[in-house]
Amino acid sequence: MRALARAITLVERRDPGVRELEEALRTGAKSPGVAGFTGAPGTGKSTLVDAVIAFLRNQGSSVAVLATDPNSPFTGGAILGDRIRMQRHALDGKVFIRSMGARGHLGGLSLATREAIRLLGAFGFDQVILETVGVGQSELEVAAVADTTVVVLTPNLGDSVQMIKAGILEIADVFAVNKSDIDGHARVVAELRTMMNMAPKTPWRPPTVPTIATRGDGVDKLWEAVLQHRRHLESSGRATELVAKRLRDETAEVAAELARDRTRRALEEDAGLAERLLRDGTPYRTAEEILDRTDN
Amino acid sequence: MRALARAITLVERRDPGVRELEEALRTGAKSPGVAGFTGAPGTGKSTLVDAVIAFLRNQGSSVAVLATDPNSPFTGGAILGDRIRMQRHALDGKVFIRSMGARGHLGGLSLATREAIRLLGAFGFDQVILETVGVGQSELEVAAVADTTVVVLTPNLGDSVQMIKAGILEIADVFAVNKSDIDGHARVVAELRTMMNMAPKTPWRPPTVPTIATRGDGVDKLWEAVLQHRRHLESSGRATELVAKRLRDETAEVAAELARDRTRRALEEDAGLAERLLRDGTPYRTAEEILDRTDN
Repeated sequence: MRALARAITLVERRDPGVRELEEALRTGAKSPGVAGFTGAPGTGKSTLVDAVIAFLRNQGSSVAVLATDPNSPFTGGAILGDRIRMQRHALDGKVFIRSMGARGHLGGLSLATREAIRLLGAFGFDQVILETVGVGQSELEVAAVADTTVVVLTPNLGDSVQMIKAGILEIADVFAVNKSDIDGHARVVAELRTMMNMAPKTPWRPPTVPTIATRGDGVDKLWEAVLQHRRHLESSGRATELVAKRLRDETAEVAAELARDRTRRALEEDAGLAERLLRDGTPYRTAEEILDRTDN
Repeated sequence: MRALARAITLVERRDPGVRELEEALRTGAKSPGVAGFTGAPGTGKSTLVDAVIAFLRNQGSSVAVLATDPNSPFTGGAILGDRIRMQRHALDGKVFIRSMGARGHLGGLSLATREAIRLLGAFGFDQVILETVGVGQSELEVAAVADTTVVVLTPNLGDSVQMIKAGILEIADVFAVNKSDIDGHARVVAELRTMMNMAPKTPWRPPTVPTIATRGDGVDKLWEAVLQHRRHLESSGRATELVAKRLRDETAEVAAELARDRTRRALEEDAGLAERLLRDGTPYRTAEEILDRTDN
């Protein structure tokens, strides 16, 4: 657990040691199943993820949770919540919970998350859950990294036009309508199912599962929907494609990060270049020149 | 207007022509004032931006609105809304409204937006407004690009803990509490002001402005707060720093994009390299090798 925690800190800090870690592990395409949980604050997403942990532990699976977090000085609430959860599972060697901060790097979260998932696979975890904290930073990134994206909604979310505006329908592989004991639940479930029926035909139609996270109700059906989606990925050949695609994406993101670093360094060290950029306003020319230097 | 619309299409498509456009315009550090409006769906953000457009036109300023949009097949609602707005201002040569799609590029929205802003400056627009559509994709990017970020809240947002979780407090330069004619408004304004007072001392303390967008109430005070923040940026020397920083950021992002493209191309064209990546799971080594090739 400690070695894993330290390795994840390296990828999160974008430490140069990641390069050596990669060589040491040589994980290849091996990758655990990744389910992403996303949804607006107040939907009970964290409670639902807790219920899923309990369910999976009951079945004997090991489970790792990566909670993605914008990691600002103001996020005390979220961090506190994670600490409480971590304490509850502190003695369970088959549960690993970790907040991953974006640390101001736009796009950096997704790369660190991809690398952390490969590490969790190398350390033998059966199931990985990605959970977004709050809104506005990571829904799309989670969908890009997870095999299966579970979108958590509640009956009191607001009207359906707002849901469409939020652009979350197209990232969902499974819908969980949580707090299904409160008013308006049947309407939201019906609306979602109607919407899915109206959408263009696709090989996978996202099912809608009602849950009450605080009581653990519906969690078995929710996980069954996740596994069904995973089987769909495997039988359609999508799973193999996804593994290869993710490694290519990760490589492209590492290259982007290296290029970004080289550019910043060049603009710091070469005052003439930085001045010309400011005078002419030519980011393309400057970026090309820096990348084409052979002394990087 | 047509030339501008075409130029923005080029940057949005990441067309190679952007390189030549850059050379032709040589905009340098010249940049219009950029105010970003962000907030959850249902806060009346679009209506508020409309009221700001009317206010600025009344004052004789030209104004361009870039609405950032995840641009999916499901976002019909948002696109329709923009079209209605566009029609209303279609005959006004001093208003330019445009949806900017992310087109599946994580991080791509921010680069295209930066470039579009430089174009709007070159075409003589006085004020640029960035508006996020929906949640989950662009709040942080807007804050990274705008001079002044206006976070729009409503009294029915939910409790303050959820607001902290959402991580929007630290990106706000100005708070607009919209729909200030409904219940709970005084409490939200008071909570925000208390929170700002409890936060660590900073040279700029975000003011909270109550608005009723549907009636245009408070829009003058809101814009005055935006201008105050802009004056603060200028008097503190932050404005000059921001211009230079943004050009460096844009250059780094262009370099990242070029590196990403080169990597994808190399992995497509070099089957041996792609196979080794899949076998060994070594994105770092592969990315470095590709960037260090001299034949890119």
